Amino acid sequence: MTDIVYRLGPGCEVDDIVEGSMYIGKVQGFATFGTFVQLNDKTKGLLHKSNVLTDKQERDSIIVLVNQVRPNGNIDLREVILQEGSYETQLVAKKVTLTKLSDLASKIGRNVTIEADVVQIKQTSGPTIFTICDDSGVEDAAAFTEAGVRSYPEVNLGDIVRVFGEATRRNNQMQIEVSGMQVLKGEEADNVRGRINRALEARAEPPEVSPMVKSDVIEALWPEMRKLAKIVRRAVLTQQPIIIRHHADADGICAAVSVETAVTQFIRDNGGDPDQDNFLLRRSPSKAPFYEIEDVTRDLDMMLKDNVRFGQKLPLILLMDNGSTEEDMPSYKMTEVYGLDVIVADHHHPDDTIDKYLLCHVNPYHVGGDFGVTAGMLGTEIARLINPAVESRIMHFPAVAGVADRSEAPELDSYLALIEGKYTRDECKDMALSLDYEQYWLRFNDGREIVKDILNINNAPERHLKLVNLLVTEANLAIEDQMNTMMPHVHDQKLTSGANLFLADMEMFAHRFTFPPPGKSSGEVHDILCKKYVNEPVVTLGLGPDFAVIRSRGVRMNIPQMVRSMRDEMPGAGISGGGHLVVGSIKFVEGMRTQVIEKMVEKISQFPAASL
Amino acid sequence: MTDIVYRLGPGCEVDDIVEGSMYIGKVQGFATFGTFVQLNDKTKGLLHKSNVLTDKQERDSIIVLVNQVRPNGNIDLREVILQEGSYETQLVAKKVTLTKLSDLASKIGRNVTIEADVVQIKQTSGPTIFTICDDSGVEDAAAFTEAGVRSYPEVNLGDIVRVFGEATRRNNQMQIEVSGMQVLKGEEADNVRGRINRALEARAEPPEVSPMVKSDVIEALWPEMRKLAKIVRRAVLTQQPIIIRHHADADGICAAVSVETAVTQFIRDNGGDPDQDNFLLRRSPSKAPFYEIEDVTRDLDMMLKDNVRFGQKLPLILLMDNGSTEEDMPSYKMTEVYGLDVIVADHHHPDDTIDKYLLCHVNPYHVGGDFGVTAGMLGTEIARLINPAVESRIMHFPAVAGVADRSEAPELDSYLALIEGKYTRDECKDMALSLDYEQYWLRFNDGREIVKDILNINNAPERHLKLVNLLVTEANLAIEDQMNTMMPHVHDQKLTSGANLFLADMEMFAHRFTFPPPGKSSGEVHDILCKKYVNEPVVTLGLGPDFAVIRSRGVRMNIPQMVRSMRDEMPGAGISGGGHLVVGSIKFVEGMRTQVIEKMVEKISQFPAASL
Amino acid sequence: MTDIVYRLGPGCEVDDIVEGSMYIGKVQGFATFGTFVQLNDKTKGLLHKSNVLTDKQERDSIIVLVNQVRPNGNIDLREVILQEGSYETQLVAKKVTLTKLSDLASKIGRNVTIEADVVQIKQTSGPTIFTICDDSGVEDAAAFTEAGVRSYPEVNLGDIVRVFGEATRRNNQMQIEVSGMQVLKGEEADNVRGRINRALEARAEPPEVSPMVKSDVIEALWPEMRKLAKIVRRAVLTQQPIIIRHHADADGICAAVSVETAVTQFIRDNGGDPDQDNFLLRRSPSKAPFYEIEDVTRDLDMMLKDNVRFGQKLPLILLMDNGSTEEDMPSYKMTEVYGLDVIVADHHHPDDTIDKYLLCHVNPYHVGGDFGVTAGMLGTEIARLINPAVESRIMHFPAVAGVADRSEAPELDSYLALIEGKYTRDECKDMALSLDYEQYWLRFNDGREIVKDILNINNAPERHLKLVNLLVTEANLAIEDQMNTMMPHVHDQKLTSGANLFLADMEMFAHRFTFPPPGKSSGEVHDILCKKYVNEPVVTLGLGPDFAVIRSRGVRMNIPQMVRSMRDEMPGAGISGGGHLVVGSIKFVEGMRTQVIEKMVEKISQFPAASL
Repeated sequence: MTDIVYRLGPGCEVDDIVEGSMYIGKVQGFATFGTFVQLNDKTKGLLHKSNVLTDKQERDSIIVLVNQVRPNGNIDLREVILQEGSYETQLVAKKVTLTKLSDLASKIGRNVTIEADVVQIKQTSGPTIFTICDDSGVEDAAAFTEAGVRSYPEVNLGDIVRVFGEATRRNNQMQIEVSGMQVLKGEEADNVRGRINRALEARAEPPEVSPMVKSDVIEALWPEMRKLAKIVRRAVLTQQPIIIRHHADADGICAAVSVETAVTQFIRDNGGDPDQDNFLLRRSPSKAPFYEIEDVTRDLDMMLKDNVRFGQKLPLILLMDNGSTEEDMPSYKMTEVYGLDVIVADHHHPDDTIDKYLLCHVNPYHVGGDFGVTAGMLGTEIARLINPAVESRIMHFPAVAGVADRSEAPELDSYLALIEGKYTRDECKDMALSLDYEQYWLRFNDGREIVKDILNINNAPERHLKLVNLLVTEANLAIEDQMNTMMPHVHDQKLTSGANLFLADMEMFAHRFTFPPPGKSSGEVHDILCKKYVNEPVVTLGLGPDFAVIRSRGVRMNIPQMVRSMRDEMPGAGISGGGHLVVGSIKFVEGMRTQVIEKMVEKISQFPAASL
Repeated sequence: MTDIVYRLGPGCEVDDIVEGSMYIGKVQGFATFGTFVQLNDKTKGLLHKSNVLTDKQERDSIIVLVNQVRPNGNIDLREVILQEGSYETQLVAKKVTLTKLSDLASKIGRNVTIEADVVQIKQTSGPTIFTICDDSGVEDAAAFTEAGVRSYPEVNLGDIVRVFGEATRRNNQMQIEVSGMQVLKGEEADNVRGRINRALEARAEPPEVSPMVKSDVIEALWPEMRKLAKIVRRAVLTQQPIIIRHHADADGICAAVSVETAVTQFIRDNGGDPDQDNFLLRRSPSKAPFYEIEDVTRDLDMMLKDNVRFGQKLPLILLMDNGSTEEDMPSYKMTEVYGLDVIVADHHHPDDTIDKYLLCHVNPYHVGGDFGVTAGMLGTEIARLINPAVESRIMHFPAVAGVADRSEAPELDSYLALIEGKYTRDECKDMALSLDYEQYWLRFNDGREIVKDILNINNAPERHLKLVNLLVTEANLAIEDQMNTMMPHVHDQKLTSGANLFLADMEMFAHRFTFPPPGKSSGEVHDILCKKYVNEPVVTLGLGPDFAVIRSRGVRMNIPQMVRSMRDEMPGAGISGGGHLVVGSIKFVEGMRTQVIEKMVEKISQFPAASL
Repeated sequence: MTDIVYRLGPGCEVDDIVEGSMYIGKVQGFATFGTFVQLNDKTKGLLHKSNVLTDKQERDSIIVLVNQVRPNGNIDLREVILQEGSYETQLVAKKVTLTKLSDLASKIGRNVTIEADVVQIKQTSGPTIFTICDDSGVEDAAAFTEAGVRSYPEVNLGDIVRVFGEATRRNNQMQIEVSGMQVLKGEEADNVRGRINRALEARAEPPEVSPMVKSDVIEALWPEMRKLAKIVRRAVLTQQPIIIRHHADADGICAAVSVETAVTQFIRDNGGDPDQDNFLLRRSPSKAPFYEIEDVTRDLDMMLKDNVRFGQKLPLILLMDNGSTEEDMPSYKMTEVYGLDVIVADHHHPDDTIDKYLLCHVNPYHVGGDFGVTAGMLGTEIARLINPAVESRIMHFPAVAGVADRSEAPELDSYLALIEGKYTRDECKDMALSLDYEQYWLRFNDGREIVKDILNINNAPERHLKLVNLLVTEANLAIEDQMNTMMPHVHDQKLTSGANLFLADMEMFAHRFTFPPPGKSSGEVHDILCKKYVNEPVVTLGLGPDFAVIRSRGVRMNIPQMVRSMRDEMPGAGISGGGHLVVGSIKFVEGMRTQVIEKMVEKISQFPAASL
């Protein structure tokens, strides 16, 4: 075993010296009582003349052993002689005491060293602000070169850096005034990244909670829901903005608002600025039950500009009550180009083809469940995994969502039982209708505070009651008026299958551009007809100028298959569409309307009517 | 009469002690020369041994009389003995010298105490900012607990508080650095609130001005107009935002801009930030002549978010040239749920049913006047009550508004006489047409500066002239082109009543989505026909796909009644609508267009033609 | 020649005194060794008793000659006697040492005097900020009277001022703390303005670069292009905001983005705030290939508000790939009223009538070129004149633009040759299609960062490739689907001229409100038909409800002439439209559709078919 001789690296101080170890130094000068030996620029020791073995000149190399480091910092050395080749030289790196960002407040006015991940870089008209994230938290580091000039241009978003500077408080926010910053590379960076990642993993891990109700489906989905919650939590912990895109109906709203509530609280609990949720979280209702190309385009345009202008991370995209189907594909291809993180909680029938674009995909069909376990149910359970503290506020959302989507899953009864004494089924239905009605007028604004009032999470129960009461009344008046207008014009036809087919021309005989919109209107017509022909099979076609909405009861329809075959048989009719087996829609070009309707009637009459 | 013994309350100091009065204290300790007696936590006096009457222990109660308060603050006491029950104890509250907010500038660097109403609470990333309002003005008070943490969470918007702190100047704005804040309750709060209210009432009281013209209608409306002006002034004085919603036509614009001008100046005169009118005042043109559900929804969404995010008060809503009719009802029901203050100045035929939702309702019909006293006339007079200093700038608005709405009221001539030598009737007409044309392209933006140029209140008379000249030329070209296109396709029919009925199909034979829009187009057609059939009764129907615009001259129409009876007789036609007796509109579903037109012609022919 | 006696003006100091000159002064007092003479409030000299000629009292006037100004500043005088009327008195104005704004950083803490042009006045809640511009640069000057109160209200935007104050650094920006400001008038102002103008002219002068390709057209346009570039550069140097309005297609985007790239870099190179390009530069895609009245209205509304609220200059408007035709006239009349600077680079056939509204108009038709030298080509060359540093980044834009607009000009081949080895013609075509497709979904947002990725100027070549690949695939899928739907319904007709006429009803047999839009759809139909009838003349009419798009090959059409004659022959059809000779569109009212199509077919058959 060879001896080890240390070489004291730059920046090392007396603290870095170990008694009994050997160091290679340089003769600095001579005094009457001995020789001064420099161990590095900052550190020198005394080689008492009694310990000198060889005859040296100034600036000669010399190997010394540290006898003692005295309390006053003086270093007593002893010369040693080693044969060339009999020892190995090792560099002593400066031992830095890393400060955790969470400890910064206790170090004000002192120099600190921090190893962290760069999560935002914003150039101001003064300094460059690096937002950094270590295993304990997130803070800002301000570096100044020249007004408005980017400091440390070699540092990029996502780099692991070592930051030197002074801990300060500015406008009552902790901040590091940077005196140096260095990008770590290779193994060193990997180590730090690993440490940060492990800590973030641990902090992002959802708490151990169980589903609110007994449900095989939800239990089977639980691991994937935990995964989704963890991704969301991690985004908050690393200052990644979150965009929640959701279907603009009551179920989608319940899903998204539950997560919004949990995330907002989680941001605040993690020391976020009170206004930060306005920057880090955006909830956007989408017209279609999928992520339309127009929506992803607008989102991308905004997020890329924010990325450039404010150095913000590209966001996490959470789709709720949409995102599971092939219709989302074009948008996912865009998110893939930009490397965006996309996660989905949906209850529409999923297409496997989209999974490769997703980090996580919660869908009841994956585990043998169906549409009846609605997005609002999933969202509320996920919200609890993100932040269980909000449970009592959002506990009724699953029931509202389930009633809204006419869930026939047993879970709905369990969720209703959970809130017994607080809300009845009818009250849930009223909230659902209020959400639909209000969202219609909100268009694609989130209406955050109004929606909170409808869902009674604003601590104003009286206002909630008055608001829901008003909205339900207005919505029902509008529906009634629409039905009075439409019903006299509904044409009926007995199909050879025995089913009753009803055609409602919504282009000509319905109020347009008002509530209820076409989908809702034809649904209401269908409901009326189902009640009238109580034991008979019923198919209702709501006809627009270039689309039709199909609803059926008691007929073994397969709408997607019908649409596909019509598309093949009628080239030039511009047919597309689909949906579920017995509820769906079809699009075509207006000039082929008559032929398309004829063909559709023909197809529908081929589906066997079920016995009711 | 029983003796009074005072008990010195917390916070009281030597200044609060009155020589010759008796106080109940506590023995604090003994010295060779006497006994120290604590009168409260902060104040103690010396009971010289010569003045001791009884034998006490430390912490015993003792009644003393104040012999003298020495210049150095020492208090000489004398013990007194009173029989239990022979005296009454009264608490001495700290005498505070309240500072008025308007005097703050003279107290910089000194501690002040203020009693005020909390009108805004904004949490910043540093301190919490309470905007407070007393009987003299409005200022900010900054309270800091921890960065981003809400100070004094027990203090709510609308509370009456006593604020202690230092008067400072920050960014050249006065501010109080809060050292303590306490919510006043019960009688004490009522007293302060009463004082503030009385002062605000006095400051909000409109100045004593008279209407610009002699008018029985305006005179009869004057008290209600003063009331409206006072509510607006009070909103400014208490930092309540104001939303002016107005019909997007020339009359509505004149009404709203006159108030906008007065309020903007009033904000500045009251020491408002120069940019404050951008936050406190918003003018929004509305498509319909009523407060549509979509508009109230958008307004509510924004105002509730501002309320939560910036702690801003819910706004005062001022409706001008709309707001008087039952069509506003659904929106008023929403404002009621949120307890919003709504005030109206309108000249459409009012429905009484809406009055319960309004704080104030100015309408000429209430006092025997009619449509001819237009919203622009009312608005200008109200603006003068808000701030008479703007009178000379807006003096011509009533004439522009009156000409725009073809007022036949005598007031119009008076208003025209008022501006004789400044603007002719034709110039007013040109401004009115310019407003209509420009607003068409502005859609629902307020176009503030362009509108000011059209109305010549931008101190740029040459630009005004060039602009109006251009807009009038362009508008007339567009109207002429539309008429050339429409007139060849107008069908005429002699009714049995003797009236001439003209049908103009605007769906098929008019330029769409451009100026002039349908209402204006059919009005122009009607004008041409009235000129052509100069002494005959004329009814013009402008036909859209699912609506018709009706204008008549010389026929004793009752459009609202006609619409109601058609609605009853034609279920399934989706009929709605109304308007004035002889000018109005009707909506229906497109599929019933032919039948509805037929029925309408039948109904119209039943109205007797008047002799002209 | 009369003698000159100087009177030392206020503020003058010893530096302003010239030895050997005569001055009129005032006796201040007497000492044993002589008389003190005040030359002005600040300056006095000693008249040694040996140099006294007359007997004076205190405060008497006296004429003295300056013998010497000593190094310590003492002034030795000698009395002179001049006959009344034998001399002339001249005021000596204070010699101020003007500081250039670009030298401000070296004067921190010192008093400076600056002569400059006022380019922005912003009232803050504290001081008034005057942004001033001299012959060297632009800086802010802060003047404070009272919080929120406008300082120096007599100073207006565009005035020439002399500013006195201290050079300071605030938030790391240079700033002048104003102690005095005076508006210069008349000749003095003219001199300063002249000096600033000359310097700006020199700095705004584009660098000496030559066109990237050999082209007679571009060479002939070069002086006008230099002029346009100079106006843009000057706007940047004087803080004038710039709005780039461009046709929302690939050619227009290439034109505008090249200038955007050059200007952004030029702003930064001139010391602009890194965020300043977000305020000073706005790129807005326009739906139509002209400046629509709606666009100018929105622009005006915003710019006038910014002018009032932030004291910003009215912007320079640069129209690209639109602006050359009479259809822009109504908007130009608006810009004229507001005195806006408008410049145009377009390749549509220009109408001379608009030139009086423009400062500069670059158009290939002006020099015998045509449409084939596209706006993107012009824009890229102009961008190089604005800032040649960006050349290598945008060098491929002309080829993309040329391919997009199917240019048949020889310049396209030269531009393609220029990028040989970097991009093929097909890659250019892909970028062009990607731009069109993406812009469709962006609506009228600029999509800045996405567009940069499509054009590969974001330093992310892989992302560029993936993105273009995706967009091209999606666009082609959509086009294919549209063609499959449309082609079966295209009607054909052999005209007497021998041409094949095809009618494609896009209202009835095309997908609407999706990509490809009507113009693109009918173009694709036309291409298919041209390939099928390869050597025959082909005319394709794409028919909307109230418009038709016309494309022709091999027919000597003159569409503008046809539209004009149809307009005359069919009053009441509401006809308008135009375009190029062989490509264009026509609008009409829906009710006249059949008649208009018939007439159009009749007209088209009268144009002789060319031999192919």
